[in-house]
Amino acid sequence: MARRLTAEQYTKGLLAGDRLVLSRAITLVESTLATDHALAQQVLGAVLPRTGRSVRIGITGVPGVGKSTFIEALGMYVVEQLGLRLAVLAIDPTSQRSGGSILGDKTRMQHLSAHANAYIRPSPAGRSLGGVARATREALLLCEAAGYDVIFVETVGVGQSETAVHGMVDFFLLLMLAGAGDELQGVKRGIMEMADAVVITKADSGNELAAKRARREYQGALHLFPLGSSGWAPVVRTCSALTGEGVPGVWEELQRYLEHARGNGYFERRRQEQNLQWLHHSIREALEERFYARPAVQQQLGAIREQVMRGEKSAFAAADELLDL
Amino acid sequence: MARRLTAEQYTKGLLAGDRLVLSRAITLVESTLATDHALAQQVLGAVLPRTGRSVRIGITGVPGVGKSTFIEALGMYVVEQLGLRLAVLAIDPTSQRSGGSILGDKTRMQHLSAHANAYIRPSPAGRSLGGVARATREALLLCEAAGYDVIFVETVGVGQSETAVHGMVDFFLLLMLAGAGDELQGVKRGIMEMADAVVITKADSGNELAAKRARREYQGALHLFPLGSSGWAPVVRTCSALTGEGVPGVWEELQRYLEHARGNGYFERRRQEQNLQWLHHSIREALEERFYARPAVQQQLGAIREQVMRGEKSAFAAADELLDL
Ligand SMILES: Nc1nc2c(ncn2[C@@H]2O[C@H](COP(=O)(O)OP(=O)(O)OP(=O)(O)O)[C@@H](O)[C@H]2O)c(=O)[nH]1
Ligand SMILES: Nc1nc2c(ncn2[C@@H]2O[C@H](COP(=O)(O)OP(=O)(O)OP(=O)(O)O)[C@@H](O)[C@H]2O)c(=O)[nH]1
Ligand SMILES: [Mg+2]
Ligand SMILES: [Mg+2]
Repeated sequence: MARRLTAEQYTKGLLAGDRLVLSRAITLVESTLATDHALAQQVLGAVLPRTGRSVRIGITGVPGVGKSTFIEALGMYVVEQLGLRLAVLAIDPTSQRSGGSILGDKTRMQHLSAHANAYIRPSPAGRSLGGVARATREALLLCEAAGYDVIFVETVGVGQSETAVHGMVDFFLLLMLAGAGDELQGVKRGIMEMADAVVITKADSGNELAAKRARREYQGALHLFPLGSSGWAPVVRTCSALTGEGVPGVWEELQRYLEHARGNGYFERRRQEQNLQWLHHSIREALEERFYARPAVQQQLGAIREQVMRGEKSAFAAADELLDL
Repeated sequence: MARRLTAEQYTKGLLAGDRLVLSRAITLVESTLATDHALAQQVLGAVLPRTGRSVRIGITGVPGVGKSTFIEALGMYVVEQLGLRLAVLAIDPTSQRSGGSILGDKTRMQHLSAHANAYIRPSPAGRSLGGVARATREALLLCEAAGYDVIFVETVGVGQSETAVHGMVDFFLLLMLAGAGDELQGVKRGIMEMADAVVITKADSGNELAAKRARREYQGALHLFPLGSSGWAPVVRTCSALTGEGVPGVWEELQRYLEHARGNGYFERRRQEQNLQWLHHSIREALEERFYARPAVQQQLGAIREQVMRGEKSAFAAADELLDL
């Protein structure tokens, strides 16, 4: 089999929903080779009219909170009970959990990963957050072209990657645990205010009451906070991904949200804004990449950063200096 | 009197704490003329070793919440009771409230604006947020060089300017009103999670109980949220800027914060990070400014944005196209 298909073969295979072609097309958008890049853009351009019809859901939470198990539970509900096609993507720029955790995910997504209507793709590894985010967003479009109705984009809620995910989804879901203790410290400040829904998971095995209490507390807290421009008041639910209790309720909230956001035009507006944001982000990243790659800049940057950090040189003077190089 | 002083005259005057020279130096950093820019950088470079010794406090809240009145009250406490020198700066990129509100501020900061140890400077007007933020940050350094011990940077909490202010201060204070009703809608989502302290103001004239209740609610809510990297748990206080009740309490919280943040090294670390952020922001802004000013880009951008927004062209392909122009 050829290492690469032609643009036409990719396009045809994608639109026919061929999983193997989808996988190879995602590998193509993940590639950093210039020739692959050109081909990938050709394919994306060709399938673009067939994208945009899925519901895009971001799922985040600290390591161990239960993301994989929750995705298995909600995912099985989506493919089995609702009969929809589901793709699961991930952004994990650290790629710390390369080998081990993909194995872990195979166990935790045992049924989903074997299901004909589910497509699971781990995060591209070994690149900058910008590169990973771009590849994931392009993979999302490819999945849509291949006919997936629902896309989950998973990320670990400890870094900058949630912001990237938030910028590519319609609905952003934060998983948490009852007992606002140490677990909380892992969630980055600011993530809470991006969430459209907070789900207190592991509400089982004697943990049910604590989860209910946490739900009440978070709901009360979120009520005090200003609404986002969607006009949607974030909701809090409990569930157990192990027993399945409460999992359909999370889906119901999503449906309520979609009705709300489609009703007031926010859904469409946000997608358009996201498109524009990606345009300007891409430009910014390319400009910065080129700038910081200049040999003169590379040579001086370290020393200048030191001076700026220590307050020996003003940030603006230093910027002028580097820009004049 | 010459329109411009020499670099040496500016420097000497600043270090001597001459208010007139300070005002003229701030006008200089606000100027968009290239010659002024070079001179301004020269002056800033010369006084830089004498900056950094003040406490920088950001103050935000929706229009009408009581920022000016609060600044008068807390400011008078700072200059009168504590005997410190205070400078008040502002970021207001909209500059909608040019004439009218500066007059308003003169009334609301009646005693402070007449006080020998207070220096009040309205926001530079008529430029982009980036330009205004840069000028304000440079003004802040000039005030420090002129010997001010405390700097307030005020902004209206409805746009992007709070993020800019947050990036130049040590302590960020959000003013709110009791009754989490419609007022709240004005505060942009995300601001709450930047606050080191929330102050419920106008706790007077029969509003005391509601303010106390709001304080309890917000304190409870904030406890559920993750700590920032300072490790500081945001506090909520009530006050009346009219009667002065609770105003010293706000200052006490600031002192507690400073002790905390200096104790764990966060204070110094954050200033260094802020310096670096300004460096990289400045570079980014300059790169983007130059890029979007290119005639070819200006000519095509509108049409390409439209196509991207409507999903007819992928954001990344469009970025490539513009970058290749
Ligand atoms: N009791 C109970 N345990 C759960 C539940 N969901 C997940 N777990 C357990 O919690 C542990 C972590 O679950 P994962 O799904 O791997 O968590 P994760 O968020 O994907 O973790 P990372 O992939 O490391 O970020 C596993 O031992 C799961 O069996 C639940 O609903 N109830
Ligand atoms: N009762 C009472 N009224 C207050 C208090 N603080 C401010 N006010 C009143 O609230 C109104 C708005 O106060 P300002 O201080 O101008 O509010 P601001 O936030 O600076 O408003 P902008 O400059 O428009 O953004 C004025 O009528 C003040 O007199 C207070 O503590 N108690
Ligand atoms: Mg996992
Ligand atoms: Mg005011």
